Amino acid sequence: MKVRNLLGERLKDVSDESQIESQILMTKGGYMKPVASGIYSLFMPTQRISRKIQQIIREEMDAIDGQEVLFPVVMPASLWQSSGRYDTIGSELVRFTDRGNNPMVLGMTHEEAAVHLANNVARSYTQYPFMIYQIQTKFRDEPRARGGLIRVREFTMKDAYSFHTSQADLEKYYERAYVAYERIFRRVGAKNVIAVKSDSGMMGGKISHEFMLLTDIGEDTLVLCSDEGCGYRANMEVAECLTEPYCTTPSELKKVHTPGFKTIDEVCGFLGKDKRQACKAVVYRENLTDKYVIAFVRGDLEVNETKLRNVLKKEIHPATEIDAESGIVAGFIGAYGLKADATVVFDRSLEKERDLIAGANEPDYHYVGLDISRDIGKVEYYDIAKAAEGGICPKCGKKTLRISRGIEVGNIFQLGDRYTKAMGMTYLDADNTAKNPIMGCYGIGVGRLIASVCQESHDAYGPIWPMSIAPWQVEVCNLRVTDEKVRAAADKLVADLEASGVEVLYDDREVRPGFMFADADLFGIPVRAVVSQKTLERGVVEVTSRDKTLKTEFPMAEAPSRIAELVAAELEKYKA
Amino acid sequence: MKVRNLLGERLKDVSDESQIESQILMTKGGYMKPVASGIYSLFMPTQRISRKIQQIIREEMDAIDGQEVLFPVVMPASLWQSSGRYDTIGSELVRFTDRGNNPMVLGMTHEEAAVHLANNVARSYTQYPFMIYQIQTKFRDEPRARGGLIRVREFTMKDAYSFHTSQADLEKYYERAYVAYERIFRRVGAKNVIAVKSDSGMMGGKISHEFMLLTDIGEDTLVLCSDEGCGYRANMEVAECLTEPYCTTPSELKKVHTPGFKTIDEVCGFLGKDKRQACKAVVYRENLTDKYVIAFVRGDLEVNETKLRNVLKKEIHPATEIDAESGIVAGFIGAYGLKADATVVFDRSLEKERDLIAGANEPDYHYVGLDISRDIGKVEYYDIAKAAEGGICPKCGKKTLRISRGIEVGNIFQLGDRYTKAMGMTYLDADNTAKNPIMGCYGIGVGRLIASVCQESHDAYGPIWPMSIAPWQVEVCNLRVTDEKVRAAADKLVADLEASGVEVLYDDREVRPGFMFADADLFGIPVRAVVSQKTLERGVVEVTSRDKTLKTEFPMAEAPSRIAELVAAELEKYKA
Repeated sequence: MKVRNLLGERLKDVSDESQIESQILMTKGGYMKPVASGIYSLFMPTQRISRKIQQIIREEMDAIDGQEVLFPVVMPASLWQSSGRYDTIGSELVRFTDRGNNPMVLGMTHEEAAVHLANNVARSYTQYPFMIYQIQTKFRDEPRARGGLIRVREFTMKDAYSFHTSQADLEKYYERAYVAYERIFRRVGAKNVIAVKSDSGMMGGKISHEFMLLTDIGEDTLVLCSDEGCGYRANMEVAECLTEPYCTTPSELKKVHTPGFKTIDEVCGFLGKDKRQACKAVVYRENLTDKYVIAFVRGDLEVNETKLRNVLKKEIHPATEIDAESGIVAGFIGAYGLKADATVVFDRSLEKERDLIAGANEPDYHYVGLDISRDIGKVEYYDIAKAAEGGICPKCGKKTLRISRGIEVGNIFQLGDRYTKAMGMTYLDADNTAKNPIMGCYGIGVGRLIASVCQESHDAYGPIWPMSIAPWQVEVCNLRVTDEKVRAAADKLVADLEASGVEVLYDDREVRPGFMFADADLFGIPVRAVVSQKTLERGVVEVTSRDKTLKTEFPMAEAPSRIAELVAAELEKYKA
Repeated sequence: MKVRNLLGERLKDVSDESQIESQILMTKGGYMKPVASGIYSLFMPTQRISRKIQQIIREEMDAIDGQEVLFPVVMPASLWQSSGRYDTIGSELVRFTDRGNNPMVLGMTHEEAAVHLANNVARSYTQYPFMIYQIQTKFRDEPRARGGLIRVREFTMKDAYSFHTSQADLEKYYERAYVAYERIFRRVGAKNVIAVKSDSGMMGGKISHEFMLLTDIGEDTLVLCSDEGCGYRANMEVAECLTEPYCTTPSELKKVHTPGFKTIDEVCGFLGKDKRQACKAVVYRENLTDKYVIAFVRGDLEVNETKLRNVLKKEIHPATEIDAESGIVAGFIGAYGLKADATVVFDRSLEKERDLIAGANEPDYHYVGLDISRDIGKVEYYDIAKAAEGGICPKCGKKTLRISRGIEVGNIFQLGDRYTKAMGMTYLDADNTAKNPIMGCYGIGVGRLIASVCQESHDAYGPIWPMSIAPWQVEVCNLRVTDEKVRAAADKLVADLEASGVEVLYDDREVRPGFMFADADLFGIPVRAVVSQKTLERGVVEVTSRDKTLKTEFPMAEAPSRIAELVAAELEKYKA
């Protein structure tokens, strides 16, 4: 491929407030073009990267006995009604009616389609287990598309679904999928990917892992144990929060005047107490009913909304305003003497505290000396607080937790029988009874993976694509195309490389070397070969690597084979 | 792959009134499963065939300098408004609003997206010509999905778009695309594919060709010259209709009583005249205004609605009822003395006729002896009649036309500047002026091609897949899996074949040979190798081809290499 014919434009600057380097560099490099919010067209280099990643994924899915199938993008609403998700999923699911007025949806995931395909054709236990997967376009109407290809509305995804006759068999397969995922991320050249326990969200099921590429710009917050022997890793959404009790000596319950002191910092500052001695109230409302929910956590902690949601089994949102008639006195909310029509949830950090500060449910007053069990009585405690830096690891028990950020580049779920049961899929077991198969599902977003690798592997000038997914393997720069000899030498180098199976991007434009190299940096091709009058005089080709670890010269005659060897050696690192 | 693990079910019978063999066989063979009308999920064998076809298409598109890109499935309505098609295309274009209430469409074709991608990045004439293509899912809300994968609503398609600075350059490229298409159809093993001139329909532009796979069950009617030296080929929709005048001797215009004789057959029978002497009236109505359109053609001809539509430049439909007040007297409509608010179009077959029978525009009366130019005056004549079997070839002038049927498996269009002009895409030409690029577009539906090849290549028992696109290359049938020696021999054969790169489907189920062979016929794998107690006793493997042209035995030890040679030799036939 010649750069002069390649559609796309490299830019000097991007007028974008985005802080994400991968987005800036891929925009500057002409990798994609926005068509609408979160919807992109991809230029050739990006599509080549995508195809290579897809092929690696395909090989690894086939290696764990996957059968590649294809589900539709457009599905009848009835299919999603049969699982119950048509009603439970919000506006991220696109709904429309076709010309016959039938309600339809756009596929954002394909559990229903997978069960539909397998239903009635996997009737006997002898046909289990099996796994089907597809690589297909999905649409999820995200409210906040961001970060270029990181979070989009339309995306190419590999999604796989496995079917089993027992939980034990699912777990065995889940382990194989886990290992296959590790191989995929290694082979595409993503270096810092770790698996963390995660919340199953709308997918249902209990055990699930997210594969997270660690990066400061990640949207997800991760809780990791810094003790290497322990290895605890979880998404903040599900990470357990353990605390040591701060004050276990009971005290007298007393109302105190706290004029205008509303926040934990203000009240604790005024009273000269540590935040750990406060009982913090955070107010939410149920989405469906608008009913208030008050979450109480210890003053040094934050509420983890996902965990709270899982306790309530209801969708909620932070209350932005509080009605005067609600009985809730903002800034002075406390568990003792609370007279409000609200669901109350206590975090377990409060269970052993015997001397707490809490709002008195009237303006400008707080209680001190609150002991929940003594003063309020028996209440249920739940784990609804966020794990924090330096917190206690729930696995090894040491105060070794650290908080990181990551981009979710893949996920695996143990779904159980949620879908097969709802949709009435059964098989005849060895004991001649009909049973619902147990499912697992396994996803990887291809576009997000491209952007994530770029995020992890770039310098100030452009992406540094790993050899396994680079759009081309070698870029040949012809620095003096008007010189007949230079042209002939560069043309021959390109022809020889291509003849030996090397993928070459050839820049033979009449542009200044600085301009050509700036473009080459944006293309991010791992190996660069430069032919100029100077190199020709010395009978060599100048060869450098995009990551700057290599800078050498090969004699002209040997250059094609030496470069091909370089490419092959590099590819070897990413082999299965 | 083992048949025992392959998801999908082969059926004995299909309760389907469909007359299309490919649909029946692919349904029996477990190739796909309907999810909704015209929407299918594909099982593994079909997806493997699809991938192989996609790869052949990709190679041929790359060979004519195509750049693979990706356009979105979901596009903003504004993009389709910018070309004007948002309003002109009917309900086959799916429209919906996203969560932000923005009107969106599902891509049924991507001219707008192609112009959007190329716009502002191909600013100079030096960057032309270029071609971009994608292989992507499309959705077209067809009113009548039919024939299995032949006519569906959701489909995988390769669509390509070329951009040029002159019509001459487009024509040069169009020729390359034409040849690439011929290569693609040959390589996927479609034997009877011909290119015919076609109507550009909603795509705009003037010259276009459809690649038609000839088959009686085809939806399209084709007009072909049976003179091999001539080679005229056109879709009925655009085929010119030429006639010889029948009666050139003028006669006297006379009104005659034709009580109750309304049809051409009735009137001509009653008057004892040839149908060629009649002037037939066919009534349509404009879709938008309901205004009447009366088409006059010679009595032996039929109206070609597509050509009539192109003359009118309006959408029309046959008038099913005629209002009493319209002035149109059904059964007795004639061009002479017609007093109705209707657009009138004359076919050129009437131009030289001097003695016509025509309705008198009053019940039970016709005129005879009508000479349009003498009695009505100067009128415009258009080519709006259907070409007919035995008609005059517009190319060689002989009466050699024959009518065939075909499935459209691809199409190529010269679009001109319709899209670039409407969407304001320009480049700076050598003379420093801004110009609109000239476009071509080129489509192939992958799923329809699969079904078409099956339609062309099957027997009563199943598809006969060409080696180049077969889901697997060899099926190994183990007829006695319970016999340890047979199992060992068959397992080794499979392992050896796979080690030498042959794709094997292995049937080692404990089923009767007849059952296994019936399934094998439905899989349609080109080469079958059978291992049984009998073959083992004789130290051989029985090898047959699915098309029954080969039935032989190979000594056990040589079998893997001999079979691999067979496969390689067969693949060679479909090479680029």
